[in-house]
Amino acid sequence: MRVTKVAIAGFGGVGRATAGLLLSRRDRYRRVHDAEVRLVAVCGSRSGLADAEGLEADRLTALETGLTGPEFVAASGADIVIEAGPTDFRTGVPGLAYIDAALSAGRDTIVISKGALVHSGPRLRKAAHASGAILRLSGAAAAALPTIDLLQTSLAGCEVLAVEGILNATTNYLLDSMANRGLTFGAALAEAQAGGFAEADPRNDTEGWDTACKLLLIANFGLGASLTMDDLRVEGLQSVAPGQIEEWRTQGLVPKLVGRLTRDGDTLRAGVGIRAYPLDDPFALVSGKAKAIRVITDAMGETIAISHGAEPLATAAAALKDLDHILAARTA
Amino acid sequence: MRVTKVAIAGFGGVGRATAGLLLSRRDRYRRVHDAEVRLVAVCGSRSGLADAEGLEADRLTALETGLTGPEFVAASGADIVIEAGPTDFRTGVPGLAYIDAALSAGRDTIVISKGALVHSGPRLRKAAHASGAILRLSGAAAAALPTIDLLQTSLAGCEVLAVEGILNATTNYLLDSMANRGLTFGAALAEAQAGGFAEADPRNDTEGWDTACKLLLIANFGLGASLTMDDLRVEGLQSVAPGQIEEWRTQGLVPKLVGRLTRDGDTLRAGVGIRAYPLDDPFALVSGKAKAIRVITDAMGETIAISHGAEPLATAAAALKDLDHILAARTA
Repeated sequence: MRVTKVAIAGFGGVGRATAGLLLSRRDRYRRVHDAEVRLVAVCGSRSGLADAEGLEADRLTALETGLTGPEFVAASGADIVIEAGPTDFRTGVPGLAYIDAALSAGRDTIVISKGALVHSGPRLRKAAHASGAILRLSGAAAAALPTIDLLQTSLAGCEVLAVEGILNATTNYLLDSMANRGLTFGAALAEAQAGGFAEADPRNDTEGWDTACKLLLIANFGLGASLTMDDLRVEGLQSVAPGQIEEWRTQGLVPKLVGRLTRDGDTLRAGVGIRAYPLDDPFALVSGKAKAIRVITDAMGETIAISHGAEPLATAAAALKDLDHILAARTA
Repeated sequence: MRVTKVAIAGFGGVGRATAGLLLSRRDRYRRVHDAEVRLVAVCGSRSGLADAEGLEADRLTALETGLTGPEFVAASGADIVIEAGPTDFRTGVPGLAYIDAALSAGRDTIVISKGALVHSGPRLRKAAHASGAILRLSGAAAAALPTIDLLQTSLAGCEVLAVEGILNATTNYLLDSMANRGLTFGAALAEAQAGGFAEADPRNDTEGWDTACKLLLIANFGLGASLTMDDLRVEGLQSVAPGQIEEWRTQGLVPKLVGRLTRDGDTLRAGVGIRAYPLDDPFALVSGKAKAIRVITDAMGETIAISHGAEPLATAAAALKDLDHILAARTA
């Protein structure tokens, strides 16, 4: 039985959930992939832990100061690196350095954080190709919602004419409160922040940037585009005029913040903004923490996927779906 | 550039649509897979056509009497056989003989008709494994709706706890007419038959057998089960008691004929019957020719897919999705 060594860089809620799920699936990896999967290293921003013989869950609570940074990747000896840290999409920091270190050394890489991929996606795609490493990012591209899979596997061979996605839970929550309970944006936000559903600085969500990041990854990695943030027109909840919510309600329409890609000849147009859906559109039912994507293709018509999973487990499971695909590809 | 020879057995509406779509995608196969895909043979139940240099669309209207049957498969010299004929699930006839001939010779096989797979699925799976042939059946397992893909790719690594599917258009149409317009089953059926939405002998659809066939393929090929029809409890529209439709309507529930799989320890329970959904369940919106599947997993929660495509093109595209996957697998 071959040994596959996995390292996890970024050890907050998602990183820890990924480690726990990976350890719980080791019997399955033996059975399905004939692989002994070892978690050989983890690191957060200031500390880490490594053991080539494999780490068990009880050791993951006591990290050692200093074992972190891109050199952690080489030191880990990992075959597969999972990048799970928070990363700024305007700079790619800090995840980009870990991903670069992994891909340039030919290590298969699973990325959960969006920032580095948004910042340098096409370059990272080329780096993976050059070194023969497999680069996967299901966890970054809307987590448990099938997006890149859907485009590349379920709709393989079809020409994609348009993509539309409800990709952000916070704005879903805020729009639900505004539309169903008549709250103003400010009141809805204050309530969401008090309940832990919105961050103290909520602009990444409310101004549409989180949706834009996911949309850009779907375009660049699912459809082979090379878009940058400058190519996207991004409008968030601030674009909703007073009275608009009430008007939609009287019309029987439900507003959602969506990212949209439309093919216009050889060009892929991308934008984020609010759209209102009639009650017989499945998108009108996508509320709370659910996410959804609609894809229109030339030969298969309309395909919709809707996902509702509990975080951080669902995101961890999305990343480990990539691990399953890599284990299968490396066996073949 | 390698040459990949494809034969299509079964040349009714779906077979012809598959041939047309395949021919129209040849440039794409060159570009994406570096493969020259040739349609080298087609056959219906009494006639066929073969040319190792490849057939163009204009020749597909004049088939020659006699070139048919399992020996057609060997004579075609095809690398990949697409089986698209009508096949009885109680006997596997006539598709089974074509599929056996293809798989035993190590030819990759794409099956669109359900019958042979329902009749002899586990045996065919073993035959493919023994000869090294790839066996794919997206077109049979609910066509453009992602089902086996969803389970094996998008939800890879997760334990599937339950599956539920709206898999048959005719019963969707009949239940819509009964629930929304107050028609009796008989009146709805007569109208559907007059409009071409139901067959003269509609029992395969209305008694739930078509749904049961698709459910069984999803279980056996998507979840590795080995169910037979005897393992399924199948109830169709005839189980709807008078007054039940009206009662559901007053309760705000929408009835659908669904196939369901539920895991009970190591056992997979399977059945087909009518279930009524509240209006905030996406399944309540799946009407007309749309199909849908809901999968519950341990780590990703609930995933729903809904598909709405025009036939026979969508089924042809599902079969050719399998062709894309085979071309990719044979390149790797």
